[in-house]
Amino acid sequence: MTVQVHRIYNFSAGPAVLPEAVLEEAQRDLMALPGVGMSVMEISHRSTTFDEIIHGAEADLRALGGIPDTYKVLFLQGGASLQFSMVPMNLLTPGSTADYIVTGDWAKKALKEAKKVGATAVAASTEAEQFNRVPRQSELTLTPGAAYVHMTSNNTIVGTQAHEVPQVDAPLVCDASSDMYSRPIDISTFALIYAGAQKNLGPSGVTVVIVRDDLLARSSDQLPSMLNLKLMAENKSLYNTPPVFGIYILRLVLKWMRSQGGLEAIGRVNERKATLLYDELDRSGFWRPHAESGSRSRMNVTFRLPSEELEKTFVKESTAAGFDGLKGHRSVGGLRASIYNAFPEAGVAALVEFMREFERRNG
Amino acid sequence: MTVQVHRIYNFSAGPAVLPEAVLEEAQRDLMALPGVGMSVMEISHRSTTFDEIIHGAEADLRALGGIPDTYKVLFLQGGASLQFSMVPMNLLTPGSTADYIVTGDWAKKALKEAKKVGATAVAASTEAEQFNRVPRQSELTLTPGAAYVHMTSNNTIVGTQAHEVPQVDAPLVCDASSDMYSRPIDISTFALIYAGAQKNLGPSGVTVVIVRDDLLARSSDQLPSMLNLKLMAENKSLYNTPPVFGIYILRLVLKWMRSQGGLEAIGRVNERKATLLYDELDRSGFWRPHAESGSRSRMNVTFRLPSEELEKTFVKESTAAGFDGLKGHRSVGGLRASIYNAFPEAGVAALVEFMREFERRNG
Repeated sequence: MTVQVHRIYNFSAGPAVLPEAVLEEAQRDLMALPGVGMSVMEISHRSTTFDEIIHGAEADLRALGGIPDTYKVLFLQGGASLQFSMVPMNLLTPGSTADYIVTGDWAKKALKEAKKVGATAVAASTEAEQFNRVPRQSELTLTPGAAYVHMTSNNTIVGTQAHEVPQVDAPLVCDASSDMYSRPIDISTFALIYAGAQKNLGPSGVTVVIVRDDLLARSSDQLPSMLNLKLMAENKSLYNTPPVFGIYILRLVLKWMRSQGGLEAIGRVNERKATLLYDELDRSGFWRPHAESGSRSRMNVTFRLPSEELEKTFVKESTAAGFDGLKGHRSVGGLRASIYNAFPEAGVAALVEFMREFERRNG
Repeated sequence: MTVQVHRIYNFSAGPAVLPEAVLEEAQRDLMALPGVGMSVMEISHRSTTFDEIIHGAEADLRALGGIPDTYKVLFLQGGASLQFSMVPMNLLTPGSTADYIVTGDWAKKALKEAKKVGATAVAASTEAEQFNRVPRQSELTLTPGAAYVHMTSNNTIVGTQAHEVPQVDAPLVCDASSDMYSRPIDISTFALIYAGAQKNLGPSGVTVVIVRDDLLARSSDQLPSMLNLKLMAENKSLYNTPPVFGIYILRLVLKWMRSQGGLEAIGRVNERKATLLYDELDRSGFWRPHAESGSRSRMNVTFRLPSEELEKTFVKESTAAGFDGLKGHRSVGGLRASIYNAFPEAGVAALVEFMREFERRNG
């Protein structure tokens, strides 16, 4: 029943490329899960079949990330954008202040939502430098007794990434939407870490939230139920109907990640892919990488060309050659290659080859 | 590439059965949409491919339901449960009162969330009668100048349905999660109508909200962005990454609904299916239908047997015979057959046959 399908190199920033093995299994079982007689889209979220799926997803998340037993794993909806509100609504208790490390447009949006809820402070911002790096530890101005410190580990739009976890006394909250489980992680350095699934973990429509038990005591009963992290934890993400299909795909992606050797192995591949691309960007001076070397993202590689006209040509010609999604985010322009976990090494090599040819013709 | 798969009769209350034609198309294209080279789960929500999907879904929703141009159609996340909060947060302006018609557990949950936001009043409740009917027009106590009146058109758990729209002066808000687009609808009688997709419209993880333009003026800028209906409308449901796959399946379901002849034709089939089942329940006195005759749901048919033991036997034997999901909701017990749009008439006939045989052996 295998049909040869034409698949292109997908550099989309998210929703993004998924492992072919995941798509193949999902396709095989789409009409009816083996032994169940119903599509996974048709099963009750209270069924034993779905129990196995969601528990399997949690077990693999725990195994892959070494999540301590003192943390809850939640599968929610609304993306990281809803967490921008849920985090302060649950954790920013009256009279306290939340510190935000501002490293890009998504961090700014997180701060904007927190301001609607309570007192905030900017611990650091690199906006004056077009967010081309993350702040150094010495640049952080931290509020004593802060409710939490919020950071963004990878900045999808500008292509920067924190390669060290900031040292802070307050609970550290991290938006890891675009680099979650792309490398080894020490969950215990975070009080709460969240990620929209649609970069490294699965399709859009599922958000993974990992939260330390003690934080949940802050959630007020007066919160809207669907925004109450404590209630979501008590109900094991089944307070209402969850996004069943998304959690199913997430489960398949996690199984694939384990088959690849886990986060150490995946991290090494991601480093190789990024190095190949950055080496090319640094080779001749024709390409202009955006991020400072210490802050370069291994997930989103951003760069410019000598002129906007040349950038347009590059987008046009690369698309025609089967490289999709290389146009930079509409807010910053330029070019961006998103190379998440499931993006194949061969695709990066092919892009480098294309870039050399492009430089020969236009350099 | 067609593989014979074993599919059972799925009476699940939701997530629920989907049209086989929808599953077949989704399966065929899961690895790569024709001419796109990527799975629908991998495409950017800012791509022209997704533009066509979401605009197609909206166009079909508008065509099927005759939605006036003065209404916005939104595709959101969080299910009806999040709307329980979003409705009052957006519409229950300070100093005003919202009236709730309480016809079941979901209506109670909606009211509970509204109470956290502002002043509410119960316009009517049939809880004293185990919610076995919806209130009559003459039973409604309405607040003059209410911010809105909230109703639940179909009560999934108890199996009742409003067969007439209440006459109210205030804007009428309707949770239509379990009967949306199961029969002809006059959208203009509602100010806002919402539905989790996972009964008649698609998979879980997508919520359809149809809202009259003038209501959006009530949304405060201080609301969390993701809960701000006005902002969602301004951004055409693309404020952040939407549940792409869910909207794609919704689009396929709507296309199937049009191929079936639209809501008139679908409503006739649903009436036939429900009549077949209720006639059987009324035949001998062995079965004990829960809902009063004027309030019977055509979507969720609830009934009991002479003893709980017999009910357990029925669940066990029907499951073994290939009828899945007939156990009543955990909160009320008994039996429930959910027969949404995509549930085949042949399945209802087969169930009736099974019921007769069961009665012969146990009556």
